[in-house]
Amino acid sequence: MASFRNDYSEGAAPEILAALEATNLEQTVGYTEGDPYCERTRALVRELVARPEAMVEFCIGGTSANLICVNGLLRDWEGVICAADAHINTHETGAVGATGRTVLATADSDAFLSVEEAERVWRRQTSTGRHMTLPRLLYLTDATEFGGVWTRGRFDAICDWADEHDCAVYVDGARLANALAAPGADLSLHHIARRAAAFTIGGTKNGLLFGEVVVINHPRLKEAFPYLQKERGGLLAKGRLLGVQFETALKDGLWLRLASHANEMALAIRAGLEELGFTPFSDSTSNQQFFTVPAVTGERLCEAFGCEVFDKLPDGRWVVRFVASWATQPADVEAVLAFAKALG
Amino acid sequence: MASFRNDYSEGAAPEILAALEATNLEQTVGYTEGDPYCERTRALVRELVARPEAMVEFCIGGTSANLICVNGLLRDWEGVICAADAHINTHETGAVGATGRTVLATADSDAFLSVEEAERVWRRQTSTGRHMTLPRLLYLTDATEFGGVWTRGRFDAICDWADEHDCAVYVDGARLANALAAPGADLSLHHIARRAAAFTIGGTKNGLLFGEVVVINHPRLKEAFPYLQKERGGLLAKGRLLGVQFETALKDGLWLRLASHANEMALAIRAGLEELGFTPFSDSTSNQQFFTVPAVTGERLCEAFGCEVFDKLPDGRWVVRFVASWATQPADVEAVLAFAKALG
Amino acid sequence: MASFRNDYSEGAAPEILAALEATNLEQTVGYTEGDPYCERTRALVRELVARPEAMVEFCIGGTSANLICVNGLLRDWEGVICAADAHINTHETGAVGATGRTVLATADSDAFLSVEEAERVWRRQTSTGRHMTLPRLLYLTDATEFGGVWTRGRFDAICDWADEHDCAVYVDGARLANALAAPGADLSLHHIARRAAAFTIGGTKNGLLFGEVVVINHPRLKEAFPYLQKERGGLLAKGRLLGVQFETALKDGLWLRLASHANEMALAIRAGLEELGFTPFSDSTSNQQFFTVPAVTGERLCEAFGCEVFDKLPDGRWVVRFVASWATQPADVEAVLAFAKALG
Amino acid sequence: MASFRNDYSEGAAPEILAALEATNLEQTVGYTEGDPYCERTRALVRELVARPEAMVEFCIGGTSANLICVNGLLRDWEGVICAADAHINTHETGAVGATGRTVLATADSDAFLSVEEAERVWRRQTSTGRHMTLPRLLYLTDATEFGGVWTRGRFDAICDWADEHDCAVYVDGARLANALAAPGADLSLHHIARRAAAFTIGGTKNGLLFGEVVVINHPRLKEAFPYLQKERGGLLAKGRLLGVQFETALKDGLWLRLASHANEMALAIRAGLEELGFTPFSDSTSNQQFFTVPAVTGERLCEAFGCEVFDKLPDGRWVVRFVASWATQPADVEAVLAFAKALG
Repeated sequence: MASFRNDYSEGAAPEILAALEATNLEQTVGYTEGDPYCERTRALVRELVARPEAMVEFCIGGTSANLICVNGLLRDWEGVICAADAHINTHETGAVGATGRTVLATADSDAFLSVEEAERVWRRQTSTGRHMTLPRLLYLTDATEFGGVWTRGRFDAICDWADEHDCAVYVDGARLANALAAPGADLSLHHIARRAAAFTIGGTKNGLLFGEVVVINHPRLKEAFPYLQKERGGLLAKGRLLGVQFETALKDGLWLRLASHANEMALAIRAGLEELGFTPFSDSTSNQQFFTVPAVTGERLCEAFGCEVFDKLPDGRWVVRFVASWATQPADVEAVLAFAKALG
Repeated sequence: MASFRNDYSEGAAPEILAALEATNLEQTVGYTEGDPYCERTRALVRELVARPEAMVEFCIGGTSANLICVNGLLRDWEGVICAADAHINTHETGAVGATGRTVLATADSDAFLSVEEAERVWRRQTSTGRHMTLPRLLYLTDATEFGGVWTRGRFDAICDWADEHDCAVYVDGARLANALAAPGADLSLHHIARRAAAFTIGGTKNGLLFGEVVVINHPRLKEAFPYLQKERGGLLAKGRLLGVQFETALKDGLWLRLASHANEMALAIRAGLEELGFTPFSDSTSNQQFFTVPAVTGERLCEAFGCEVFDKLPDGRWVVRFVASWATQPADVEAVLAFAKALG
Repeated sequence: MASFRNDYSEGAAPEILAALEATNLEQTVGYTEGDPYCERTRALVRELVARPEAMVEFCIGGTSANLICVNGLLRDWEGVICAADAHINTHETGAVGATGRTVLATADSDAFLSVEEAERVWRRQTSTGRHMTLPRLLYLTDATEFGGVWTRGRFDAICDWADEHDCAVYVDGARLANALAAPGADLSLHHIARRAAAFTIGGTKNGLLFGEVVVINHPRLKEAFPYLQKERGGLLAKGRLLGVQFETALKDGLWLRLASHANEMALAIRAGLEELGFTPFSDSTSNQQFFTVPAVTGERLCEAFGCEVFDKLPDGRWVVRFVASWATQPADVEAVLAFAKALG
Repeated sequence: MASFRNDYSEGAAPEILAALEATNLEQTVGYTEGDPYCERTRALVRELVARPEAMVEFCIGGTSANLICVNGLLRDWEGVICAADAHINTHETGAVGATGRTVLATADSDAFLSVEEAERVWRRQTSTGRHMTLPRLLYLTDATEFGGVWTRGRFDAICDWADEHDCAVYVDGARLANALAAPGADLSLHHIARRAAAFTIGGTKNGLLFGEVVVINHPRLKEAFPYLQKERGGLLAKGRLLGVQFETALKDGLWLRLASHANEMALAIRAGLEELGFTPFSDSTSNQQFFTVPAVTGERLCEAFGCEVFDKLPDGRWVVRFVASWATQPADVEAVLAFAKALG
């Protein structure tokens, strides 16, 4: 049966792979520095986000993008506030910390960074002057680690708070396409691009072999990014591979179609499992769906579909995750539902 | 006309790309952690290097591999001795330094680290106890930054010195295939694998889209590597892309055929230009060839063939570089020679 | 009125200062490397702690000692587990993080690191292999940040847990003398020295102008310490100042008499204030005493005695701290009690 | 016989020690944050340097001051150009590098950073864009590591070059008093304070127990310094000790008298030894004097006077150093000369 372990189990969407093949023998300069694919994609992204002055760069992966951006947006003694389950706090082996900056996690339990918790952490950190790390950045993920999608209202509230507290905002968009394409989503790419100091548009989890676009508004990060990317080992020699892939994905909406498909597949699982009496763990409208299930059910789902166990609760139940991708087929979804039904 | 700027101007060798296509829709786990391609390639590399106990890992690029390995082989206050033109000293924006380790460059001017210079730097650095960075690692590049190939005698001499001075040896093999395939080369893969604490086998410059294999003998680096790779943002989500590419390259000698071809093309340029009276800058038997030329000649070669200017000498002459790749065609070489002849 | 803000408000105990004067014009070599005062003190400490093989070094201050020891006991991707209020987590501006190591705070609210919380954090951090920082060290403070003193039972329990989980134990002894001299204390210096990988004996807060002794059992920290101390800017040129001061403090028990006095003064405040109906915030038997008071009371105490406000509770009350030192006089204590009584 | 090993062999000048005694039992707040001694000294320094807007801070030692200032004046991928023998390059165990910044040493052999060498290193480092560390700071030492004193002309030339190349200038003044008090010195404190982004006024080597004043003009270092100092473990708890000592030293010219005395003693050695036919190694007009001597002479001088061997030349001769301090007596100088005469 198909795996629902994650959205990077397959290679690339066929259109992306075809573009790599078509351009394979062309010679270009390296490092994303001046080849026509990267240059055209930069222009395309600036148009898509409606920020003609933005710097547009390309990273190999999300952790690399995150550590470079957080490092470049902060000085040595400054910190970034994020929710407890933020990717930089839980799944990047201290990558931000290894660049000398501090991750300041809140107690938010739903992966959305709240104004209340940001305020609480900020007050604590600024209560003794130079004796504590100074918060100067907020880290948001959209869609969140639990599949949630930021609304415009929620996003504006945290951005307003950030403005008032001299903090910049960085949006980790590893699954940004899924957020933008989610049913009911009201936060636009233009609006994110208007308020964030920098944000990423993920490709790895949306049908590229690899790659993240980084959009940068912040003047100091514009200066920092090219150097930091090389210094941190994150600059791809054959840089045009990123340009070729993203141009293909972005130029006629392919990226949103891929994400939309992944969302639909995941939401079909959710609808079907809810009908069967399964309990969603989080309010997700995107391509990750979490369910709280008895341990025995969890074990069987994991075995059958490669689900990740996200948590084992004190009451013995498990939180398991289904992730759909651009490559998930309706038949795969049906297989899940049939299997779940058979479980009783 | 074809560019001779570097050996990563094109995409991937056709066999490599075909393997990516053939496996594109398969689902595997990520991060090089357990997919069949990476696992088979690990076994294959252990056989090729005749080190059944070696750890075999996969990096996205050379700078990432270098910074992880040097970091993991040293402690915070220790340093790595290398030749002045070593890649880590000149083209990685302080990447090793950014991980907290110190690069200690010698005055060697031919890109080979010499025993004499290693000794001189070591004596200086150990003359005042804890007041100076302690050298504990040597960094070699094979083929070197100037195309030179380490002989077994030269390699053993520096490894012997390292043993006597409690230093480990790391070999940056970004162009290792070119070194192994160079005419007259007498230093074997087995021997490198026997004496180096760790070394890389480069793919980026030898027909892969990207990727370096890292072979690790050193116990502490074995512990360190998996964590450091993630912490430094160097772990690829779709890890099997590295396994697929390297399995194809390594399983039946393709990697050496690709490198051998690149060497031949470069040596044909060298032979032809020498016949025309050009002066080689370094003694290179591999796919990079350097010539010392009048500035005006340099300008025209750079314009026509995308050569890099490696240095501008005090006497006004330029050092220009031609790099051939797996994709270079005999006609491309002929075009260079015809152009050079026409220059007079 | 006398300040109770902290135990480093004054200069040095008269005996210490006299020793500095007596030796002032002597010439010695620098950096604690071989002068007779440091050498004799090293021997003295080894005797006091009954560890003839221990390395004994001298730091200028506590943050410097902590960052060097935690750095040297961990590798780049490893972390140290500590209570939420641990000094390294709350009052050192990310100093440990700035050396590239990660602080992993538990939810312990009483400044004692508990086995339960250590276990919880350890499980979380080891649940996804290399994707999270690996805990390899526990950080304890004795006396704790809230004045608590570790019992032998509690200490052995956490050390046993550490042994079972391949973690070392580091004890920040900025106020170790106060802990050892506290009424009812049953954890001996010998026992700490037997189980800790390293620990400090604080001088700054116990009558020296400045200085902490570091006692090191751990082989890798023994190698690391001398270099790291210089690399981190923590090596004093006129090193013998540390030897002179600590020899005076340690040679005939002065350090314990100074701490004992400070404890007595603080406990007299506690007894007196409790009698007046004040509510202690923590169970402290050492020279720091915390009380939960109405805000208005808090304000007046702070104004009169320089107390620090440790927290402002949601119910509006304040937590204020009194710290007594070697220099606190009985009359100063009486002044506090009289003032408190007058407050009503 | 008296040691001439260095200028930090003794404790403190009597006036300094007396001031510490006189204030010993006063209670002040810690961390140099608001005690009257530090505050008055700040005002005094601003007057002395004629920079009413300067930030004035206090460090425990020179390495701590250097690593904080260089770190704060640079961003992660930037570097500091200095002469080969600069203290940060040779005697601080990679302390600047450990904060993530890069030391870029020139080939200057006399410890003065020259315009020519700064230019050469700058050209090299800026020749490939983001692939190399970007120089943005110059590090000078006055008096230099070889006792040389910067003239105003030489200083202005390097500062002009720095201005033209968007580099800031940092002056390590560990022996600034000796430079200012040197016979013939024409570079004033006011002028240094006008042109340097930051500089230090050393106390450790000029009669204090320890301590360096840091004078900061650069806006970003003003923001950075307080946090970085704590983060790097360089903030003294009993901060007023620095204020007390420096107020005493600076308020009526004591610091210059102490330095002047040290210079005179050293120059008397130089004059005497030159008369005896000894060969000075460097052109020093301050309190360090270097001589190139036969090895056998070197051995005997080192044995008798604790001289440091600075170098052992290829021709077998040694370079030995005499350092005089505020505490050196004329009789000590006479002893050197008599001894040297007896050597023949």
